[in-house]
Amino acid sequence: MSKDPLVIFTPSGKRGNFPVGTPILTAARQLGVDLDSVCGGRGICSKCQITPSYGEFSKHGVTVADNALSEWNSVEERYDQKRGLPKGRRLGCQATVQGDIVIDVPPESQVHKQVVRKRAEVRNILMNPTVKLYYVEVKEPDMHEPSGDLERLRVGLKEQWNIDVPRADPHVLTHLQQALRKGAWKVTIAVHQGHAEASASIMQVWPGYYEGSLYGLAVDLGSTTIAGHLCDLQTGEVVASSGLMNPQIRFGEDLMSRVSYSMMNPNGAAEMTASVRAGMNGLFDQVASEAGIDKTLIMDAVFVCNPVMHHLFLGIDPFELGQAPFALATSDALRLEARDLDLELHPSARVYTLPCIAGHVGADAAAVALSEAPDKSDDLALIVDVGTNAEILLGNKTKVLACSSPTGPAFEGAQISSGQRAAPGAIERVEIDPETKEPRFRVIGSDLWSDDENFAEAIATTGITGICGSGIIEAIAEMRLAGIVDASGLIGSAAQVGTERCITDGRTHSYMMWDGSADGGPTITVTNPDIRAIQMAKAALYSGARLLMDKFDVATVDRIVLAGAFGAHISPKHAMVLGMIPDCKIEKVTSAGNAAGTGARIALLNSEARAEIEATVRKIVKVETAVEPRFQEHFVNASAIPNAVEPFPILESIVSLPKVSFNSGEERGGGRRRRRN
Amino acid sequence: MSKDPLVIFTPSGKRGNFPVGTPILTAARQLGVDLDSVCGGRGICSKCQITPSYGEFSKHGVTVADNALSEWNSVEERYDQKRGLPKGRRLGCQATVQGDIVIDVPPESQVHKQVVRKRAEVRNILMNPTVKLYYVEVKEPDMHEPSGDLERLRVGLKEQWNIDVPRADPHVLTHLQQALRKGAWKVTIAVHQGHAEASASIMQVWPGYYEGSLYGLAVDLGSTTIAGHLCDLQTGEVVASSGLMNPQIRFGEDLMSRVSYSMMNPNGAAEMTASVRAGMNGLFDQVASEAGIDKTLIMDAVFVCNPVMHHLFLGIDPFELGQAPFALATSDALRLEARDLDLELHPSARVYTLPCIAGHVGADAAAVALSEAPDKSDDLALIVDVGTNAEILLGNKTKVLACSSPTGPAFEGAQISSGQRAAPGAIERVEIDPETKEPRFRVIGSDLWSDDENFAEAIATTGITGICGSGIIEAIAEMRLAGIVDASGLIGSAAQVGTERCITDGRTHSYMMWDGSADGGPTITVTNPDIRAIQMAKAALYSGARLLMDKFDVATVDRIVLAGAFGAHISPKHAMVLGMIPDCKIEKVTSAGNAAGTGARIALLNSEARAEIEATVRKIVKVETAVEPRFQEHFVNASAIPNAVEPFPILESIVSLPKVSFNSGEERGGGRRRRRN
Repeated sequence: MSKDPLVIFTPSGKRGNFPVGTPILTAARQLGVDLDSVCGGRGICSKCQITPSYGEFSKHGVTVADNALSEWNSVEERYDQKRGLPKGRRLGCQATVQGDIVIDVPPESQVHKQVVRKRAEVRNILMNPTVKLYYVEVKEPDMHEPSGDLERLRVGLKEQWNIDVPRADPHVLTHLQQALRKGAWKVTIAVHQGHAEASASIMQVWPGYYEGSLYGLAVDLGSTTIAGHLCDLQTGEVVASSGLMNPQIRFGEDLMSRVSYSMMNPNGAAEMTASVRAGMNGLFDQVASEAGIDKTLIMDAVFVCNPVMHHLFLGIDPFELGQAPFALATSDALRLEARDLDLELHPSARVYTLPCIAGHVGADAAAVALSEAPDKSDDLALIVDVGTNAEILLGNKTKVLACSSPTGPAFEGAQISSGQRAAPGAIERVEIDPETKEPRFRVIGSDLWSDDENFAEAIATTGITGICGSGIIEAIAEMRLAGIVDASGLIGSAAQVGTERCITDGRTHSYMMWDGSADGGPTITVTNPDIRAIQMAKAALYSGARLLMDKFDVATVDRIVLAGAFGAHISPKHAMVLGMIPDCKIEKVTSAGNAAGTGARIALLNSEARAEIEATVRKIVKVETAVEPRFQEHFVNASAIPNAVEPFPILESIVSLPKVSFNSGEERGGGRRRRRN
Repeated sequence: MSKDPLVIFTPSGKRGNFPVGTPILTAARQLGVDLDSVCGGRGICSKCQITPSYGEFSKHGVTVADNALSEWNSVEERYDQKRGLPKGRRLGCQATVQGDIVIDVPPESQVHKQVVRKRAEVRNILMNPTVKLYYVEVKEPDMHEPSGDLERLRVGLKEQWNIDVPRADPHVLTHLQQALRKGAWKVTIAVHQGHAEASASIMQVWPGYYEGSLYGLAVDLGSTTIAGHLCDLQTGEVVASSGLMNPQIRFGEDLMSRVSYSMMNPNGAAEMTASVRAGMNGLFDQVASEAGIDKTLIMDAVFVCNPVMHHLFLGIDPFELGQAPFALATSDALRLEARDLDLELHPSARVYTLPCIAGHVGADAAAVALSEAPDKSDDLALIVDVGTNAEILLGNKTKVLACSSPTGPAFEGAQISSGQRAAPGAIERVEIDPETKEPRFRVIGSDLWSDDENFAEAIATTGITGICGSGIIEAIAEMRLAGIVDASGLIGSAAQVGTERCITDGRTHSYMMWDGSADGGPTITVTNPDIRAIQMAKAALYSGARLLMDKFDVATVDRIVLAGAFGAHISPKHAMVLGMIPDCKIEKVTSAGNAAGTGARIALLNSEARAEIEATVRKIVKVETAVEPRFQEHFVNASAIPNAVEPFPILESIVSLPKVSFNSGEERGGGRRRRRN
């Protein structure tokens, strides 16, 4: 008796012998090969497309004859005519084994396909959403065996897909009977399979085979902005992205002023909750309209946010977060329904919020940890997400530490005399000639530098309106590199520095970046109070990082990841000149973009990633900066702007710093500051 | 070394040896003795009261010394002064073992206490509600171990009560932090423990020790009336009962007319759903106000109803129930939240609906099965719940059959010329003298018979307004017994019967029950069409019962239970004379009162009863009368009103029937009817 034909699947390499006539989909299932199917092998969904390979495969030790698969059949022909099958493709449920064969499963036919992320250094997302589609044939009712339509649907699901779904969401009952009859007892259902099998539930029923997609939302709920990505839950593709200002801004620009608002107003927290939820529903309208889909097809949503936003969004008064011991109402991940939060999506859309790490380190930091995975890193990674609060993670495979540091809003352009948000017209890049002390800069909205001959024309519509966060950092760092500012943060006088751009401004000096007054425009200067504000902010950031390094018992880190929108725009060189971040080789400083948003997207598309980040967060060592004496100590020492002679390391590898000293008070100035702190 | 003292608990008989100093509560827990405690042995809740017994117990082989328990302590003293401890009682958490001792656990200290039902023949309800209280001491927050308040509460619950509650209902998060701080980190929580451990959830948090009660509702949602019982979930006591007319009546008196309404009106089903839910909320207001409690303390509700009401209440169009194969949208029990049904109770109150047995045999019949437990009966029990539809159960320990039969509204006084609902003024009891053919009767609202000299005075306020369902049955049965009606249902003429009360009424005769016309009151007669209507209704009921007997392969049943309000008022003797129910010894015919309501109450108070009835319903053999040829056959044969010479058995044990025959057309009359059917 001859042996059954050998079937080899690529790229998995799984192989087995199957009797002649076995459908490829059946062989794949028996071998545990990741081959998709929504219709269960009925030739309807075409998700099981495969590419057979013919010829000699010395690597696999087989030769595949031309007739190793059954002939193209009428189901494939019909599908090809109706929708078109790519050349060389077959339907895995139709093509049967006739001889030894090598079958390639293309990425789009894999259930657990990978969503390729733009930045190659970060792992891709494995698809495994919590909501999936199943095509089910249901037994017709029999008055002698009077079980309900739902119960027969569940039996079909068990028989045809081997999954137990103990219940249906209540609203499903209202459309179930019609769908079954309209689809002639064939329906497609969306099933939510959460972490516990007992909580699996049917979310929706469509008559016949449902051709559409299901959608999910990954939302990064920031204090200032809310950003949402609408994702296709089958392909993982981002189909629309949108953002809006957090409408809570009218209750307070920063988090602590919102906490105060809730303390001063009896219904303050409830007002803010209603406001952010209304904003959220507006965002959903935007993304749904951008993608041209019905909002009720959005079946799942993942939210990441800092602890105060987390509480306000959930309807919890953030009062306790405003004072030690900064107790969270709940720190674990939450699995809710959209209706619990007054969100208008699918009637029983699910909601997942990532766990909070600590009272100051929120679900957004957890999302960064999920995206950047320091717990999987061989080298020691410092990850900083810079915002009004900086969340800082330090770790490698052995352990991960986390803290937050109150940087305040200076990095976002607030508290800066000419500061503004990152918007067209804002100075975002600065260079100062160390010889002439003359600046050149770029503003948002144009790629030209200010010394380009076409610059004036390029910025005609936006004008030059102020300096944004990344601009002020570059300006101060360049001022320091050009010898305009000393290590203590004092701007020299025109005489000391040797440029008329240094002007007297009260008891200190300012540096004139741009004088538009001749044309009725603004005068943009960097003042000494501006430098003080940035010094405070960067000292907080630096001190948090140093505190974690102390706790980790290291003096240096292997690499630094700058996360967040601000992190994406900041220049690593200037950040290091300023002393925002510890010393590190410049090429080892990378930007992760909106890592919190990416983490939310991973949690949306892969339910196992949820369990994973929950376990990771439980293991993260939390460090509370507010009560760490070492933090205060680092803070006091970190306000200076480093150069080669300072105790703060660095930078030889990047630039050679001129050693400047305006007056003999420099050391004393530093000393006074230390005492005042 | 001497042996540890022996502790014997009564009534359980559990015993064990425990070291001197062991609290009685601890000993009880280790032995698995059913001794309650909400505070976990902290001397706060006093639920663990026990009664020590002293002296010689030859039965148990011990002699209990006076000092077998530790002395009365300050906690007990304080409690006694504050609330009073009944004489002889000790607190089980305070009194410790000092020597051999016999401890009685009084019923009110048992967790699984029994709620004694009024009717002794039916098993009592074992308390095991799905919502229970726990007193928990919670660790204070520590910013170095920044877990959330909820997470620490869950840890306390696990440590102090050994139960895992994976989550809290979303609204709990909004009051958790305040409650913990107000109660100085001691709280009482209500936990919902459903069927699956994964679905356990914290429903409410109170600061400190919560002294109040929790409540649940058992609701019997009928086509005509809605009746609700508000129960204390700790004692099982019914604290308030109320009822109202089903507001859906304006869409149709009977179920089929409501199904038609939904077919004829695009929003018909939705309108009816909104209407019954609004009515339900009104009922909740009534019972809560009657009991003087806040509706938000109602944490659980159980609903029983027929399939059409079941669907309309759940928001499902009952269209499919109006036609073969009578497919239910869902037949299983449902575990929902009150908000799913727009019910205004506790914000996350749970709802349980019993399973439906078949498209015509609803959750109300399942509740009757739970209450009357034919599946636990040694003898063969026939249980009929008479309403617009009659649900019929027949079974014993070996198997249970169920069917429903379309009796129509005649038994409720509809379709009867002088018919009315059972309300003051309605004739409810009738006797007719076989010799004189003169009637005497009683009306609702008075205990006097109409031949009492004070009768006129007694009914002065109500008057005599009509005949209710039980009244018409007695009237017709008595008319048959008095020879006024023949077996085919024809009323004889005055000449034939020998009384002027038989009056000519069109082509047939009527019997004058009451002539109030002299005083401007109504004339109450029993007409031949009245008898036809009752014949149709009783034939349907009888045929259903007979069909089940055929399926069970028996010719007689051991006992008959009449359930429902109508069943409670009906006279077994007259029901048998009429041929409503099969032959059975009269003393074996009992009334179960509102058995469906009782079943709802059992399911409310005992979560295991829910699993039990779900399993029972799965095993019940469903019989669909609509397609059973035997049903039609029985129906045709059952329209006659039996007497001793009829093929339908009976009654020798009760009455000796006069054999009357008005005319020779009797047999033909029956024959014609048969052909017409």
